[in-house]
Amino acid sequence: MQEVSKWGVWEISVQGPKEGNPFAEQWVRLNVCGQNECREVDGFYDGNGAYIARFMPSFEGEYRYTLSASFLQEPLSGSFRAGAPEQGNHGPVRVQNTWALVYEDGTPYHSIGTTCYVWHLQSDELIEKTFDTLSRSAFNKIRFCVFPKHYVYNLHEPRSYPYEGTPMDSSVLTKENFNAYRGMAEGNCWDFHAFNPEHFRHLENCVKRLGNMGIEADIILFHPYDRWGFSQMTEEEDLFYIRYIVARLGAYHNVWWSLANEYDLMQKDDKRWLDIANVLCERDVYTHMRSIHNCRNIYDFTRPWCTHCSIQRTDTYSTVENTDAWRVRYKKPVVLDEIAYEGDIQYGWGNITGEEMLRRFWETALRGGYPGHGETMTGYDDILWWSHGGELHGESHKRFWFLKRVMELCPGNGLKPSENRRSDEVRAEPLESRYKGRFILCYYSFMRPYFRDFYIDDSTVYDAYVLDTWNCTCTKAGTYCGKFVVALPKKQYMAVLLIAR
Amino acid sequence: MQEVSKWGVWEISVQGPKEGNPFAEQWVRLNVCGQNECREVDGFYDGNGAYIARFMPSFEGEYRYTLSASFLQEPLSGSFRAGAPEQGNHGPVRVQNTWALVYEDGTPYHSIGTTCYVWHLQSDELIEKTFDTLSRSAFNKIRFCVFPKHYVYNLHEPRSYPYEGTPMDSSVLTKENFNAYRGMAEGNCWDFHAFNPEHFRHLENCVKRLGNMGIEADIILFHPYDRWGFSQMTEEEDLFYIRYIVARLGAYHNVWWSLANEYDLMQKDDKRWLDIANVLCERDVYTHMRSIHNCRNIYDFTRPWCTHCSIQRTDTYSTVENTDAWRVRYKKPVVLDEIAYEGDIQYGWGNITGEEMLRRFWETALRGGYPGHGETMTGYDDILWWSHGGELHGESHKRFWFLKRVMELCPGNGLKPSENRRSDEVRAEPLESRYKGRFILCYYSFMRPYFRDFYIDDSTVYDAYVLDTWNCTCTKAGTYCGKFVVALPKKQYMAVLLIAR
Repeated sequence: MQEVSKWGVWEISVQGPKEGNPFAEQWVRLNVCGQNECREVDGFYDGNGAYIARFMPSFEGEYRYTLSASFLQEPLSGSFRAGAPEQGNHGPVRVQNTWALVYEDGTPYHSIGTTCYVWHLQSDELIEKTFDTLSRSAFNKIRFCVFPKHYVYNLHEPRSYPYEGTPMDSSVLTKENFNAYRGMAEGNCWDFHAFNPEHFRHLENCVKRLGNMGIEADIILFHPYDRWGFSQMTEEEDLFYIRYIVARLGAYHNVWWSLANEYDLMQKDDKRWLDIANVLCERDVYTHMRSIHNCRNIYDFTRPWCTHCSIQRTDTYSTVENTDAWRVRYKKPVVLDEIAYEGDIQYGWGNITGEEMLRRFWETALRGGYPGHGETMTGYDDILWWSHGGELHGESHKRFWFLKRVMELCPGNGLKPSENRRSDEVRAEPLESRYKGRFILCYYSFMRPYFRDFYIDDSTVYDAYVLDTWNCTCTKAGTYCGKFVVALPKKQYMAVLLIAR
Repeated sequence: MQEVSKWGVWEISVQGPKEGNPFAEQWVRLNVCGQNECREVDGFYDGNGAYIARFMPSFEGEYRYTLSASFLQEPLSGSFRAGAPEQGNHGPVRVQNTWALVYEDGTPYHSIGTTCYVWHLQSDELIEKTFDTLSRSAFNKIRFCVFPKHYVYNLHEPRSYPYEGTPMDSSVLTKENFNAYRGMAEGNCWDFHAFNPEHFRHLENCVKRLGNMGIEADIILFHPYDRWGFSQMTEEEDLFYIRYIVARLGAYHNVWWSLANEYDLMQKDDKRWLDIANVLCERDVYTHMRSIHNCRNIYDFTRPWCTHCSIQRTDTYSTVENTDAWRVRYKKPVVLDEIAYEGDIQYGWGNITGEEMLRRFWETALRGGYPGHGETMTGYDDILWWSHGGELHGESHKRFWFLKRVMELCPGNGLKPSENRRSDEVRAEPLESRYKGRFILCYYSFMRPYFRDFYIDDSTVYDAYVLDTWNCTCTKAGTYCGKFVVALPKKQYMAVLLIAR
């Protein structure tokens, strides 16, 4: 019997017609039944007469399947066995409550994200560099697009296109004139009913390799930075694309769906987004994480289709400090997917310091949210992590492991702001009330106190540690009970961690 | 004929009764008439049988006076002449419009403030150090209290008390217990109808010396940090005090009245503050600047008695970025009298970096407000500029001259935010529309752009300068017209200044 691992991908492939437009004219459907679940998923055409259907088992045990297709007289059927998950595969990320994200196996998911919009559409060499950088990083989520990106620093051709056809001549583009080429620019010729399987196969390989590295792939389905017309398809074409990509990618445990990057810069109205979300909800039987990312106007994440908030900061100054307010407003976990980029480009969203990026990470995490990084450093042949991946040249990313380690130390599934916090600190405690007072983390942000006084209660004995979040050091300050004082070194970015004995 | 200078202090003294309580039982009134003004002001008892009345002429020319008093059978009368103002005396600061402050002679007043709550109640040696520090600084306004201060780092006895009587024994105070001694603490014995003239004479001398140095004295009439009961007097006692201090200090051109420091921490209700403001408005014939300073709740500065907003930041994170919003809300000039302190004490309001303080100064100024400094550095025998004056140990104060110089370079009376600003900059232009486009100042705050592009119009020729606000350097970038780009050094705290040829 065929074997697959729980949360792995079981795949079946059949040959069928190549004539006409197989994407539009043929269909494949896979029915899978095990002891604990029955699922029906779409298959897809992979080119060259090959039709594929995929399934991710959420349970161990025996499954029976039936494959039907427009071109099959009789369905194909058979069975396979789902064994124990592979080492490191904890299943898809799920929303545990209004604060926390956890893997399906119950392991806490402390999200440390980054953004590389089209890293996978670069050269093989650059893609390998990105994988290498990621493998040595603390990141466990990466946001990227299906469609190529047209924007300043992003004027070259991608390695492949999602559709059959030909692009406009990009040799006419300059830094000065690129903005004149928008959406369906002249010279493009695409068949929006004929996908380029090579483009998607490559995307899948990237998603798969990320999964093996323990990294969630936050896939951006639409975005406005376009010169080819992929942002201006009809509703029918949009939904045709959504069904195809869900059929191809839905079985990968580490997929998240981001309906859009900067949805409010696109020419789709509210109803269109809801229609897209509805098809996504309907077709994605695994209920992967789903959200949508804003430019100026934060989406209304109270809408049922959203599993979580995916927020880009809307103010140059006040940003992650709103994490608490957003969670209260939307009552869903808050993922801050863009809090500006460490870098030095000309735009205010892309030129903060490493210190400020790290500060935003700690503020976000201690307020019960999940931070996302990005980098836009110039001086490296216009290869910017933000879009192209490659190497990191900033300072903040080297320090995220320390935050992640502290989050992992926290008992339960994560942190939330403490009720006892003062106005000049961020104080976090474990989400679960049973750990109340057992783990208390106080962060002083850009402030430089030379000491802080504490009084939790009269009886609990605490080991107090001074954390230097920039230098990633943890120094034992002492063991205390009742009222006590912890000396600090008059530096920015310090924290005090109290662990009850 | 006696001579005085315009905006100087003309003073007349008479001997009268010492018996009983001269403060409460006697009165002195001075009538002054010149060609352009007639004023009636209160005199005051200065101890030892001496009664004094003071007048500040707002015009040059001959004045006639009449002094009446409860103990004089016949009024005294005579005349004096007001000559040209002394060098550097531009008259009181006035509100020119909803943005700008100007001296009465029309000179722009670019306020660069600081706070030293009770610097004048320290030792002679420390007071001289403060004068010396101020004389070498860019400050042209200082906030300080009439009453002594009781607070952490402020537990010792002041050099004098405002009333006759005896204080509680301060030897019982410790850092830990001081908060238990509040308001009218046990052991105090004061006569709130008998002022200590020595206390006020010393205060006047300080105000006068500040005036000679071109520094406005922003006098805080009430504050909550008290162990003697000066914060808990009756309404009658409050108003008795107000009349006395206006009689003594009103004639000094550089006086501002701050009804309170952190009014909302005091046990006075809204009506009490209005009553105090009314007496102040009635008695202060010179209409000095008047405002009130908050802790948690910003006062409603739309009230007619307030000449301007005096604001302490109410949020640890978002502060001076609200300057524009406050001006729009209150329609009066915005003076940010506390935007946290450069220092390293235990409280979040007192431990920001010099860089952050300077950033807040530039943000405030370019948003059309007036910033205020403070310093709380430990390690100098608990002498903190914030309360005690003395020497400055921080980094920000060394750089304020550069901001002041740029403000002085601006044609007209000051800066306001430009309508053409982008979200990732603060852009300021002259207040007066006749200078529109002649002087454009763009500040990049904590951001680090490696260049910025500009397009003002097609015809104006600009000299562009790159300002390093931290290192206080101004470098000519070039002369441009139309669309142009200014290169920047990938550093924080940079600005670009465009001056039309």
